[in-house]
Amino acid sequence: MGGSLALALRGKTAGIGVVDTNPAVCAEALARGIADWAGGDLALASKADVVVLAAPVRVLIRHIGELGSQRSLLKPGALVIDLGSVKRPVVAAMNALPDGIGAVGGHPMCGKEVSGLTYADPDLYRGAQFVLCRTVRTTHHAWVAVRGIVEALGAHPLEMAPDHHDQVVAAISHLPYILASALALCAGVRAADDPDIWRLAATGFQDTSRLAGSDPEMMADVLLENAPAVLAALDGAVGLLDQLRTWVRDGDADRLRESLGAAQAARKDWEQSRKLG
Amino acid sequence: MGGSLALALRGKTAGIGVVDTNPAVCAEALARGIADWAGGDLALASKADVVVLAAPVRVLIRHIGELGSQRSLLKPGALVIDLGSVKRPVVAAMNALPDGIGAVGGHPMCGKEVSGLTYADPDLYRGAQFVLCRTVRTTHHAWVAVRGIVEALGAHPLEMAPDHHDQVVAAISHLPYILASALALCAGVRAADDPDIWRLAATGFQDTSRLAGSDPEMMADVLLENAPAVLAALDGAVGLLDQLRTWVRDGDADRLRESLGAAQAARKDWEQSRKLG
Repeated sequence: MGGSLALALRGKTAGIGVVDTNPAVCAEALARGIADWAGGDLALASKADVVVLAAPVRVLIRHIGELGSQRSLLKPGALVIDLGSVKRPVVAAMNALPDGIGAVGGHPMCGKEVSGLTYADPDLYRGAQFVLCRTVRTTHHAWVAVRGIVEALGAHPLEMAPDHHDQVVAAISHLPYILASALALCAGVRAADDPDIWRLAATGFQDTSRLAGSDPEMMADVLLENAPAVLAALDGAVGLLDQLRTWVRDGDADRLRESLGAAQAARKDWEQSRKLG
Repeated sequence: MGGSLALALRGKTAGIGVVDTNPAVCAEALARGIADWAGGDLALASKADVVVLAAPVRVLIRHIGELGSQRSLLKPGALVIDLGSVKRPVVAAMNALPDGIGAVGGHPMCGKEVSGLTYADPDLYRGAQFVLCRTVRTTHHAWVAVRGIVEALGAHPLEMAPDHHDQVVAAISHLPYILASALALCAGVRAADDPDIWRLAATGFQDTSRLAGSDPEMMADVLLENAPAVLAALDGAVGLLDQLRTWVRDGDADRLRESLGAAQAARKDWEQSRKLG
């Protein structure tokens, strides 16, 4: 996400630096012209007018704490934003930043199941909704600046309250990931004994399981930081699966068709909202 | 599926007829040159050397019974194949066809979540696995002829026992459909009260829920005809979801990461098996 953002902003900003503890990432960022400077020390953030935190959500929450605890790690008047998938704990961490720092929580609704600079794509953000959450450190200046960055990426800024954001992404992002992972696990266990499992798995399996390819460290962080909303979404899904199970077991064709028809209608509803959107 | 098959075989066979109770489908098939003749009466099957049954699985099982009950509905020596997603009940129906008829159960591992002639695609079968199940009516001649048709479609014939096929597709096709439908239902219920649900649903939701767009009548048939294998696959998935739920609730990051890592490994395993072909 960070690499794609740097690529998308290249030429639109005075200079871009990359801070990553992995020297290979820094070297690649410099070699590919993604960054003007790079290094492994978080203190390098003091060089920046705008600090964009792109890391697993628990790591970036820790970074916000570190940046705030020693005032010298941020330039006076600096702006801090993040790209994390959970907003309540990020906004809480940003609220504790020192006065004089501008901070806005961010979550771009785009991404790939692969990560790393290899897959960086300057068009990743184009047309995506980019959720923005106000913090107690969101000055008027910070808000205007962040909206400008989002628009420079080609994305649409969308203001949301952090709790509401976290409930919505539990339903449309974290739940799909868990379902995809359960599917991949089930099939993987059987594939160990039966080569026909992978031989017959085609586009349906491919799409439904795609999110299971996501980085497990990053996603475990997300699920744990958004646990209450994730558990509620999961309970809703398991309740529906139990219902569908009962109708299949009892051969209740009418109720089964009705429920599957409602699922199809919901999918079409979303497609329609996409076209209008 | 039937329209795509007709398109793929156009020019490779002496003539193609379409039997459909919907006159609009017959008219479109003739207008687009997909068929040389068309009509709504199953008795028209008596004109054909090869009868391909492409219909929801319960309907095509009924058609096999009807074709077999009155000998005059099939030309002596005719070959009957089907494209249904469940094979045990289809093979059982084919076993009851009269002596002198050749019959092979078929299931091409390709498809779209949309159906109808509008979406017919002559390249749909290209490169796909095409499962073939022997019946007591599978003569040597019938087997060779069906393999020839599958190869003419550009697909790969793969012989399987019907029970084994049904268990495998429950895991890699019917389970993904049920999970996708539960996801679409959950999101749909919430979207009725909250426009941000559809606003934020992006590629992750899109792919994971794609199969929910499938025809509910057709899929209800499939789930009910394959109930034992579907229930077993569903129980496996719900068991895994319960485990993941426990680890999220308890904040057990190690076990959660391990399990999500195994899911990612399974997904990569499948991708790898795809590349090896």
